[in-house]
Amino acid sequence: MKALVYQGPGKKDWVEKAKPGIEKPTDVIVRVTKTTICGTDLHILKGDVPAVTEGRTLGHEGVGVVEEVGGAVRNFKKGDAVLISCVTSCGTCPNCKRQLYAHCSDGGWILGHKIDGTQAEYVRIPYGDNSLYPIPEGADEEALVMLSDIMPTGLEIGVQAGRVKPGDTIAIIGAGPVGMSVLLTSQFYSPGRIIMIDMDPARLELAKQFGATDLVQVGTEDAVTRVLEITGGAGVDVAIEAVGIPATFDICQKIVSAGGNIANVGVHGKPVQLHIEELWIRNINISMGLVCTNTTPMLLKTLGSGKVNPGKLVTHRFPLDEILNAYDVFANAAREKAMKVILQA
Amino acid sequence: MKALVYQGPGKKDWVEKAKPGIEKPTDVIVRVTKTTICGTDLHILKGDVPAVTEGRTLGHEGVGVVEEVGGAVRNFKKGDAVLISCVTSCGTCPNCKRQLYAHCSDGGWILGHKIDGTQAEYVRIPYGDNSLYPIPEGADEEALVMLSDIMPTGLEIGVQAGRVKPGDTIAIIGAGPVGMSVLLTSQFYSPGRIIMIDMDPARLELAKQFGATDLVQVGTEDAVTRVLEITGGAGVDVAIEAVGIPATFDICQKIVSAGGNIANVGVHGKPVQLHIEELWIRNINISMGLVCTNTTPMLLKTLGSGKVNPGKLVTHRFPLDEILNAYDVFANAAREKAMKVILQA
Repeated sequence: MKALVYQGPGKKDWVEKAKPGIEKPTDVIVRVTKTTICGTDLHILKGDVPAVTEGRTLGHEGVGVVEEVGGAVRNFKKGDAVLISCVTSCGTCPNCKRQLYAHCSDGGWILGHKIDGTQAEYVRIPYGDNSLYPIPEGADEEALVMLSDIMPTGLEIGVQAGRVKPGDTIAIIGAGPVGMSVLLTSQFYSPGRIIMIDMDPARLELAKQFGATDLVQVGTEDAVTRVLEITGGAGVDVAIEAVGIPATFDICQKIVSAGGNIANVGVHGKPVQLHIEELWIRNINISMGLVCTNTTPMLLKTLGSGKVNPGKLVTHRFPLDEILNAYDVFANAAREKAMKVILQA
Repeated sequence: MKALVYQGPGKKDWVEKAKPGIEKPTDVIVRVTKTTICGTDLHILKGDVPAVTEGRTLGHEGVGVVEEVGGAVRNFKKGDAVLISCVTSCGTCPNCKRQLYAHCSDGGWILGHKIDGTQAEYVRIPYGDNSLYPIPEGADEEALVMLSDIMPTGLEIGVQAGRVKPGDTIAIIGAGPVGMSVLLTSQFYSPGRIIMIDMDPARLELAKQFGATDLVQVGTEDAVTRVLEITGGAGVDVAIEAVGIPATFDICQKIVSAGGNIANVGVHGKPVQLHIEELWIRNINISMGLVCTNTTPMLLKTLGSGKVNPGKLVTHRFPLDEILNAYDVFANAAREKAMKVILQA
């Protein structure tokens, strides 16, 4: 089969590789029909994720069709259409039993990281009964690919951890795919005002179409000053960081209101300075984490009921064997006006 | 009347001062019968709290007897025995209506800070109907003084914000009066293991008497190493910071388990380095804040039912007019083996 393989910092290729087989009775082999590229894949390619070794197939998102199941698999059979979760969970360890699947003792985020991932014709999914979801009849497959990672990440780590409530004023810093997922899923909880903050006017315009009520363009205006103006000096109930750098975390510290929440969704590579000498007295809560995908069943229902349509995050489509071109487009997202790219097998 | 007055950094005196009178119809004048000294008062005396100006009467804790009430006061009359809350709340502003009394638009922590406080023979309490509590018949007045500030601070900012649950392993860093209040109130929620961390062996011994299951003495052993040993490498469900310096906040970052909480109770004067590059993936929650005293009614009930006895935090007693001696003892708490001092009018 063919797979997109990491070959050390800055190097990747679309190569011939052995098709995966069942290794444990709980495994499921999936023929990938649609996959995508994540910002995390770009981080890996820069060499920022040392756990990824040369030869690793990348990718942790996708949908497909069951090709083969191990002897212990009960929920799936050959031919079933499935959604692949970015998080693998055994379902039985202490962390799984409290839905902290990100910290499964034999799973977590391992796909395209510690084991071969979804940017290939076939992928082995450990603990298939817990790590795959049946695809509802007639569901939009492109929308479903957004449910592998970015939509539950936005919902769990941004919206739920940030405790977004009806009527709240919230700010989302970063209008990339995950920030947009926060924007879409925050609307489940009916915030009153959604301020989107980004440098890219095209992304801000898209955010407006997706439900943002206020746009702040970093570079042409000072984000902190503008948010305080918009909120009459009070700041926001929830500030959601979806970039992953000290400067954007700092904006959150400066715009959160007394009694408010900072929900960090961004992946950080450096420490940040926490202004606890100012914030300690302000009754602030700061959350951070890796998605557990425990909201996937909820998201499938909202998709089924038409409450949300994450398919609109897809801006580009390529055949799977043109994945190297897709990486070029995604790595130049601003120039290409790209949000999410779909690779179709 | 006499009052303990701040006279600029490092200076205080017990001086003659005009007895306060009703200024607004919602005011209550209380004759102070018992008060105490808080670590915050020592901070003020160092000049660390610039909002406190020369001539200010210090103190934000105490019990007393109503001397006079304004025309709008409905809940109290002359002669009533009352508990004074350290937080003044109007009860009607948007923050009060969500129980965020610490951020009352015309209150919050103002006693002994922005207005004259309780270390005096009389004190004016604004919004008496909301900022005072009737003292139950037969209640221990010394125990009640602990309910003005430290007990609700420990409960709200340590235990509740830290989400202590039955069976949890928790660590409390700092066995001072507030850390001890965390220790006492955490037991309402039945944690399985309570690790107390401090430099002072006498305070640790006291913590053991008050319910700590494990003691870690900083200086003779490395706190992080020891806590990880105690928890089999997993870390604690809740790490509670009750000191207010970067080093102790840093211990919390290193001992919190995946999915755990850091509850900051300490008052900080400097920023801290938040290791978000390690913590982002660990599903951590960090809380911080000033007490709202919305748990005062709950604490009064637990006191009444004998579920908790904060009176045992009192180690020293002085007549009110010996408050300068009491300050000397409290400022040298380790040498004097002092926890809380009571001033008795």
